[in-house]
Order: sequence, then structure tokens, then C-alpha cells
Amino acid sequence: MADYFNAQELHQMVEENRRVAHYGEVASYIPELQHADPERLGITVVPLNGKPITAGDCHLDFSLQSISKVISLMVALSDNGFERVFSKVGMEPSGEPFNSISKLETVENHIPLNPMINSGAIAVASLIKGESVDLKFEKVLEFIKKIAKNQGITINDKVYRSEMETGDRNRAVAYFMKSTGIIEGNVDEALDLYFRLCSISVTCHDLAQMAAFLANDGIVPGTHDQLIDVEIIKAVNTIMFTAGMYNESGESAMRTGIPAKSGVSGGILAVAPGKMGIGIIGPAINKKGNSIAGLRLLSNFSRRFGLHLLA
Amino acid sequence: MADYFNAQELHQMVEENRRVAHYGEVASYIPELQHADPERLGITVVPLNGKPITAGDCHLDFSLQSISKVISLMVALSDNGFERVFSKVGMEPSGEPFNSISKLETVENHIPLNPMINSGAIAVASLIKGESVDLKFEKVLEFIKKIAKNQGITINDKVYRSEMETGDRNRAVAYFMKSTGIIEGNVDEALDLYFRLCSISVTCHDLAQMAAFLANDGIVPGTHDQLIDVEIIKAVNTIMFTAGMYNESGESAMRTGIPAKSGVSGGILAVAPGKMGIGIIGPAINKKGNSIAGLRLLSNFSRRFGLHLLA
Amino acid sequence: MADYFNAQELHQMVEENRRVAHYGEVASYIPELQHADPERLGITVVPLNGKPITAGDCHLDFSLQSISKVISLMVALSDNGFERVFSKVGMEPSGEPFNSISKLETVENHIPLNPMINSGAIAVASLIKGESVDLKFEKVLEFIKKIAKNQGITINDKVYRSEMETGDRNRAVAYFMKSTGIIEGNVDEALDLYFRLCSISVTCHDLAQMAAFLANDGIVPGTHDQLIDVEIIKAVNTIMFTAGMYNESGESAMRTGIPAKSGVSGGILAVAPGKMGIGIIGPAINKKGNSIAGLRLLSNFSRRFGLHLLA
Amino acid sequence: MADYFNAQELHQMVEENRRVAHYGEVASYIPELQHADPERLGITVVPLNGKPITAGDCHLDFSLQSISKVISLMVALSDNGFERVFSKVGMEPSGEPFNSISKLETVENHIPLNPMINSGAIAVASLIKGESVDLKFEKVLEFIKKIAKNQGITINDKVYRSEMETGDRNRAVAYFMKSTGIIEGNVDEALDLYFRLCSISVTCHDLAQMAAFLANDGIVPGTHDQLIDVEIIKAVNTIMFTAGMYNESGESAMRTGIPAKSGVSGGILAVAPGKMGIGIIGPAINKKGNSIAGLRLLSNFSRRFGLHLLA
Repeated sequence: MADYFNAQELHQMVEENRRVAHYGEVASYIPELQHADPERLGITVVPLNGKPITAGDCHLDFSLQSISKVISLMVALSDNGFERVFSKVGMEPSGEPFNSISKLETVENHIPLNPMINSGAIAVASLIKGESVDLKFEKVLEFIKKIAKNQGITINDKVYRSEMETGDRNRAVAYFMKSTGIIEGNVDEALDLYFRLCSISVTCHDLAQMAAFLANDGIVPGTHDQLIDVEIIKAVNTIMFTAGMYNESGESAMRTGIPAKSGVSGGILAVAPGKMGIGIIGPAINKKGNSIAGLRLLSNFSRRFGLHLLA
Repeated sequence: MADYFNAQELHQMVEENRRVAHYGEVASYIPELQHADPERLGITVVPLNGKPITAGDCHLDFSLQSISKVISLMVALSDNGFERVFSKVGMEPSGEPFNSISKLETVENHIPLNPMINSGAIAVASLIKGESVDLKFEKVLEFIKKIAKNQGITINDKVYRSEMETGDRNRAVAYFMKSTGIIEGNVDEALDLYFRLCSISVTCHDLAQMAAFLANDGIVPGTHDQLIDVEIIKAVNTIMFTAGMYNESGESAMRTGIPAKSGVSGGILAVAPGKMGIGIIGPAINKKGNSIAGLRLLSNFSRRFGLHLLA
Repeated sequence: MADYFNAQELHQMVEENRRVAHYGEVASYIPELQHADPERLGITVVPLNGKPITAGDCHLDFSLQSISKVISLMVALSDNGFERVFSKVGMEPSGEPFNSISKLETVENHIPLNPMINSGAIAVASLIKGESVDLKFEKVLEFIKKIAKNQGITINDKVYRSEMETGDRNRAVAYFMKSTGIIEGNVDEALDLYFRLCSISVTCHDLAQMAAFLANDGIVPGTHDQLIDVEIIKAVNTIMFTAGMYNESGESAMRTGIPAKSGVSGGILAVAPGKMGIGIIGPAINKKGNSIAGLRLLSNFSRRFGLHLLA
Repeated sequence: MADYFNAQELHQMVEENRRVAHYGEVASYIPELQHADPERLGITVVPLNGKPITAGDCHLDFSLQSISKVISLMVALSDNGFERVFSKVGMEPSGEPFNSISKLETVENHIPLNPMINSGAIAVASLIKGESVDLKFEKVLEFIKKIAKNQGITINDKVYRSEMETGDRNRAVAYFMKSTGIIEGNVDEALDLYFRLCSISVTCHDLAQMAAFLANDGIVPGTHDQLIDVEIIKAVNTIMFTAGMYNESGESAMRTGIPAKSGVSGGILAVAPGKMGIGIIGPAINKKGNSIAGLRLLSNFSRRFGLHLLA
């Protein structure tokens, strides 16, 4: 990477894609997200062998939102094993909007289709082990700090309160899962943990570090600690590849050819297995909920450096 | 591959997985498929650099069934380009049964979710260019012969008649797409072509050769002819990865880590990009429609030789 | 009726409601219907004891369209009995659009919800007995002539051809029902009969006579012939009451309080049991497919003469 | 009625239908209902002109369950008028299970289809006016006591607690409606009121008195007080007729020919407009949720005394 890649070229890519942001809009479904500047665009690349490279607005803080689904899936699989987790949530891409509730009712056994849609992620959150919501949250936050190599990561309280205030649809989904036995414990606690995880504040540098961890088979690059089993990493990367970009997952997989997970705050975490981690922020999102300039930047980047896994 | 791989080990894998077939059943949805022997299991591997290796029941003839969807997608994309094809069919994995019609009604613009479900494949078949159904079929068959390196491939007439006689659900799907403008031409011709392509008779050796073509970026291994553009290969491999195994696509992607397409006759075509093509036959299928022993064999094989693309 | 009712008042009601037609549009789903004049409005009332009274555009010819569903249900029940007919079609109001296909797939046993939606009516048409489509059609047409007391009723060939040319969605529905065993015979014949019955040309006077037959327990008023068993009349009137006005059935039942069936040509057949038959034509229809001025006229009329059955 | 009707015949009808109960089961969805004796069957008839007649197990106490939906609809319409109530809930029969949530998501404007399904009834409960849940409940209870002519009617606390403990699916429905703006106020209060109303304890004599009120255009028989406007009575009776018996509403309307509302406790309230009110209890319910012996008894009774409104 170090050989053929330079920050200048990355900078140029960012500027070329920035204007695409005009076709998107910042998320409005929770009030706090509306304050973002739609024209920001930034990328950080963390090669497994080499130094991080950044371009554009990498200083920008934003909340993880749905990107947290990737993290909580790793933790829940570590806590419970494959069998238990996948008895409560499926592995199949959905073709449904991320906040769909109908499917929960019509699908066999009422199991959420996968951990990347809200229902699945709330079910996953309910499986994370800990004595209390506070302790569960602390555990996951510690894990994030470790894989992002950043002890300064915290929750954004305003976003958290905003999530709590406007989370009635997620409450509906959670109570439905309680009624069908998918959620066994306390509904409000599962929701609280879910909302907190969505509200964790990061930069695209943090995302790139986390992605590098996923690209490196569950070992923080530069260390020898296998924090997460490689089988879990395979599963998480695969689910991201088939279902990580909401209803645009198939198109995104075709264009970029690598696993990625987006959040409505405009962040994208993308994984080039064995090669690098990528973190992107671009708050203007398209109708599917993905950063419009960010997704195009990722696609250009993948093409330029031949990251597509399927040819 | 030649170095570390031998037929003996492959033979052993086949025998270990053969007994799993007892948990499945041969397809019954068209009468002709019921005659298959559920205990057959065979695999052929075609490395891009090296000689084909086979084990088990590789002599067995079977019809392509849904595996033909991969072929017709390549031809339709070559004939029409990405823009036109993907204005008539989506790129998103579905989470729906392969023969679902409800989704066509409820989804925006009534576009079939992807080319791997029946509706999508019929729409794709309607886009293949040619003066008549006969000529369209001949064109696709010639393409198959070329990439499978087997001039002897033909249609199985009994299967074709069986498809025609029992194809009312596909007719329903096709007429619905006619009513919404997805199919622009003659419905009966599109269905006829679709049924014929499903009825092409192959062996797992043929599948492995076709898969090797897909693993080799659209060049028949050993030649220099770019028969299909590499962008089309990327697209087709990606769609197979996210949606190639019916409602088990996500689980299969997680376990095997490579693109694969199954048919209800028990065939599986699997692609290890840049490495090899794999063809499997095992007529006993599970409830999702995939060869039960074949899928397990593919998973073992992928694990043994480290083919998983995502870690 | 003769005592308290006069043509003058009816005339006034028609003129008051005529202007409402501006809020609707003539049907466009088959080309032939588009030629209708949206401002026409006419009503005929046939009291069981008394002379017919008319007001407005009662000379206007129009095709039965969905009103034929009421007729074919009577004939099919006479031909086959309750048990067989209701093994192929339900009795439950649907809350779905009249041409929905999704419900057929998702509902238990794939039985159309009721005989007033297209799928149900096509299933009912497939049950009508006769040696050929021609003879079946003749039989139903003779029945219509008899209960409408008008030997001059015929098919409108232009409408019939228009139905045939644009009937792909109904073909989809029919082939789906063939695939699930709801239709046992020939699909094209069932569709042909269905399209012909929709294309029968009537006036609102004919509708009122037919309605009077339904109001008179299955006896043509003024005769003593029980043409249809009273149990069938009860069933047909009830189904009209709960499901006769497409997705507006509930609201219409609440406002008018009597069973009625509409067609997209703008006709309404309404039954005041034991009292009178009502026929209305008003080609401008609302988004639900019901004559916008016609429905309001019926509601006013019912209120004025206290026809509401439920208070 | 007094002329041709006697208690002896009614007694015989009850005994004939009692054995049908063996084909049903007592409701199990809330624990408290399981204690009912499935073989009980009782009926009370309150003629508008004449004395109540009873037969069978009329002493039995049971909770209103879904029958309360009729009461709360009357109160909410009185409190708010038609326009406001029907901006929050539809008038159309549904063809969906009573506790469906999918429809809420897929239907235009997310409006519950009608007030007889849980979602609609919870929306209706949220519209009842009062300073607190306690005062709202007191208001409705007073209304019930008045129309049932029984000052002793109270809530069954055990049933209420059981409802609260097992009400997660209703909570899901309510939070979904909060998220779409159908419920404007406090979700927990709307649910609490809904659960309390379901838990009101009555006998079939009480039901028959309430039904007589509905049969008498909103005037308690024997008094001159128009407690509820006749337009509301028409609406409520019509909605009961098209949607009062869950997914069996169409079939029940066809067989009995009169508006009726059932509850899973096995109660049925049935209205013969202008003639009489009928109350039935039979705790063994069928798969659709209706008293199996009770519904058959109602059908026999209606046929015997010619109550069918539609022929």
C-alpha cells in the first residue's frame, strides 16, 4: 500500500466526490442529526502494514448509529456463541427497510432476518451479558476503545436523549419481539443499551481502526491479541457484505466488492480483508440511508486499488 | 493447488458427506426431477492453473434449473448493458422464497428484487436478444458449450415438457410483469426460453468449467478470449454471493465464503475468484431448495482450502 | 312507496349530486371505458310493489364490469352448492385492493378472500357449468335477461376486446390460482368467460330490475318463479354488504346501510331487501373505483327513505 | 315476540348446541381465561317490547374482552365526533387477524383498518376524553352500567393484571401507532384504559341489555333518553356487522344476518335492530376466536325467528 498510494490522490478523490453530497440530505429522523453539515466528506485508511492516511473532514465527530450493530454482534457472539445468537436472529439479507416490523410478524418463528436491521440489532443487544445496562454498555464501550485504539471515545448525550425521545418505532419492534419470545429479558433495558450504542461518538479515523481490526481476523493490528475469534469475524464480515448498507446492500456489494456498514449519521466502516480498514464520513445521505458522497468515494477507492473480492 | 491437493482427500470428503443426503429429499415440484437418486454425490474442481479433479458421482446428468439464471444474466448484460437490465430487475438480495409473487406487487415500481429469483430471471430472459425463441436459445446454448468446453451439451426434452406442463406459477409471475411493463415483449416466448434454459442437461464437470470461467474474470481458462466483460463477471459473482442459494444465501455465504448458485436438481456451481471453479451434484435437497450434502461438502471444501473471501 | 315518493324529488336529488362528479374521473384501466361522459348521472328505482321511477341519464348504456360478480356468484352457487363454491373462495371482506395478488400467496390455502374481488370472481367463473365457454356465457346471459326483464341485453364487443387485450393482471391472478389448485379447469376459458361477463351492456333500469330480484328473495317481481334459492340470495346480499364497494365497502355500508355492488364503469346495483331494487349510473369514479356522484346519490336516497338496515 | 316465543324452545336450542363446544377450546392467551368451563352455554334475549328470556348458564361472569370495543367506539364517537375518530381509525373490514401489526405498517397513512381490531380499539381508547385514566375508565363504566341496567358491574382485577402482564403485543401495536402519530397522547395510559375495559366483568344478561340499547337506536328500552346519537348507533352496528367477529365476520354475517361482536372469553353481543338484544356466553372458542357453540346457537336462533336482515 505504502508503495503505490499517496495522500494527494486520496485528497483529490474526496474533492471529486464532495459535490455529490448535494443530491442527498442529512438525516432528520432524530433531531440531533439535523445539525450536521451536508458538505463534509472525509476518509481515513488504515493499512494492515503501514501508516494511516487521511483526507478531507476527518476531524468530524458523529454518532455510530447503525454501525454499532457490527460491534454489538461481535460482542453478543463472543458472549453467547453462534447457536444461541442465531436462534434469536437470522443470517439472511432482507430486502426490507431497516425499521420494518411487518416482516417480524409474517416470517417463520418471527425471527428478525439479520442483525443489521433494527429488530435484529435490538435482539442482539438483549443478548449481551452484564449485571446492568450500565455495565453492559461499559463493556462494549471498552471493547470499542480497544479496537479503535482510542481511549477518548464516549457517548454523545444529546444524541442519546434524542434517540430515547423518538424511539417509539424501535419500542414497537422490541415489544413485538418480547411477545414472541425473541427477547427474553427486560425490553426497556435492551432498548436502552441499543440507543446508547447508537449514540457513541467517533471520527472516521476511529471507524478505520475498527475496520482494520475486522480486516485483520480479529487481532488489533500491531498486536498479537486475538480479541475476537476468526469465525466470528468471518460471520460479521459476511453479514456486512450481504446486508450492511440497508436496502442498497446488493448494489453496494456489486460496486465496492467489500463488506461495509453504514449509519444514518453518514458514517461508513469498510473492510478489505487482509489489506486495510476504511472509515468514511459524509453526513448527506440518500433515500436508502447511506452517505451519498461517501458511498461513491468508497466505490472509486475500491476500484482504484482493486479491492473488489469477486473478480 | 496441484501441490497440496489430491483426489484421495476429495474422495474422502464426498463419502463423509454422502450420508447427510438422508436429511433431504429429491425435488418434486416437477415430475421429471423425482426420478433422481438421492444418494448420489459428486464434485469436480477445475483449478485455473492445473488439471480438473473429480470425486464421487460425476457422470450424473442433471438439468441446470436455477443455475441457468447465472448464464442468462451474463448474456442479457452483454446484450443490453447494465443500465437497461437493471431498470428491469434489481440487485438486492430478497429474503423471499424464489417463487414469490407478493413482493412484485408490493415493491416500488414492481421490479423483481434480483435476477436469482424466478421473476427476476424471467425478466432477464425476456431481455436476451434474438430473432426467435429458437435462435435465442441456440445463442445461449452455444455460449454454455463454449464456457463449459463441452460441445455435447443439450436440452433434456422430458424436463422441458415437465416444466411447460407445471409452469403455471411462473406464468402468473410473467403475466404480472407484463401488466406492469417489466416484460415488454411476448410473455409466452420469455417463459419458453426460461423453461428451456432450466432444462439444459449438464454434469458437475460442466458446472466446474463454467465456474472456472467466472473465477477467471470472463476468460475461458487456457484461452485469451475475454468472452464476457470483467465488470459483468463482478456483478454476476456478487449477486450469486448475496442471493445465489435461495433463502439460505446468507447462511451459505457465511459458511462457504464464496459465490455459488444452486438448482433444485441438486447442482451447485461455486466460484473461487482467481483460484478455481467448483461443480457439485447431490439430488437430495433441503427445505430451502439447496443440495443438502452438496452444500455441506462445499462448506468443508472451502474451509479445508481456505477459500473464504472475508477473513 | 307510491304514496310518499315522486319522480320530481328524485330528479332533484340527481341534479344536486351531479356536480360531485367533478371530483372523480372516468376509468382508464381499459381504453373503452375512457369514452364515457363523466357528467352523466341517472337512477332507476324498482319498488317491489309499484312502478319503476327514473331520473337523470337512464338511457345510458354501460358495461357491467364488477357488477357481473354478483350474477356469476348466484349462478355458480346454483350450479355447485355452497360447499363446493366456498371451498374455492372465501366469504370474508378483504380490506385489499380488488386486483391484489399478494394476498392469494400469503393467505392460508391460497383461497381468494371473497367473490367480489377479481381473483374470487375468476375462481367463481371457473365453477360455472356448461359444455363450452359459449354455452356457459349464453346460460348466464339468459339468466340476466330474465331477471332484468330485458331480452335485448347483449355483450359490448369493443369492451370485451379491450378487456382481453389489457387483462394481463387478471391472467396472472388466474394462473396463480391454477398453480394452487383453486382453478381446476382451463385457465383461458375461465378468463374468457370472466371478461365476457364484465362486458355485458346494460342500463341503470336493467340494474334496478336485477336488484329488485335480489330484494325479492330470488323471485322476479310480479312472477312466482323462485329462480334462485333464498339461501343463495341471503349469501349474495350479505357479501355485497360487506365487500361490494371495493375498499370503500365499510364506509358505504355505514352510509347507505344496504347491500350494493359497483363497477368501474360507474354503475351501482343496490338492494333494499323486501322493498326495492336500485340501479345507478355515474361514470366518474373515485380513487376506490366507485361512482363518486352515484354513491352520494345512493346515500342521500337511502337516508331520505329510511332504508338503512342497522338502525 | 311474546306471542310466538317461549323459554322452553330456547332451552332446547341451548342444549342442542352445547355439545358443539367440544370442537373448541377456552382461550389461553391470557392465563386468567383458561379457568373457564368449556361446556357452559347460556343466552339471554331482551325484546324491545317484552320481558327478557334466558336459557342455560346465564349466571356465568366473564370479561368483556373485545366486546368492549363496541362500547369504547360509542363513547369515543360521542366525545370527538365522526371526523376526528375516523381520521385515526378506518371503517373497512380487514380480513386480517385481530392482533395484526403488519397491516399498520403497509397500509396508507398507517391508519388501523377498523375499530374492531386491537390496533383500532387502542387508537379509539386513546381518544376517550377525561382528566386521568381513572376518570376515563369511570366514565365508560358508568355508561356500561346505565345501558346494561346493572349498577353492580365492575372490573375483574385478576383479568386486568393478567392483561397487563401479557400485553406486549398490544404494547408493540400502541408504540407503533405513537410513532406514526395515530396515538397523540400517552401510550401507557391508552393501553391501561384498553386493558381495563377488556377486563370488565359481565353476564350474558348484561350483554343482552347492552345489545337492546343498540337495537333501540341509542335509547335504553323503557326510557326516553337518547344516550347516544342514532347516527353513531348506525355506524357501530354496521361496523359490527362487517367486522365484529374477527376473521369470521363475513361468514357470521352470512349465517346470522345481524350485527354481533364477540370476545375471546366466549361472549357474543348481537343486535336485531328494532327487535331485540341478544347476549350469549360459551367459553370454548374456535380458531378464529369466536364462541363455537355460541355462534351456532346465534345462527339457529336468527334462522328460527327470521332475524336475517338481507332476505
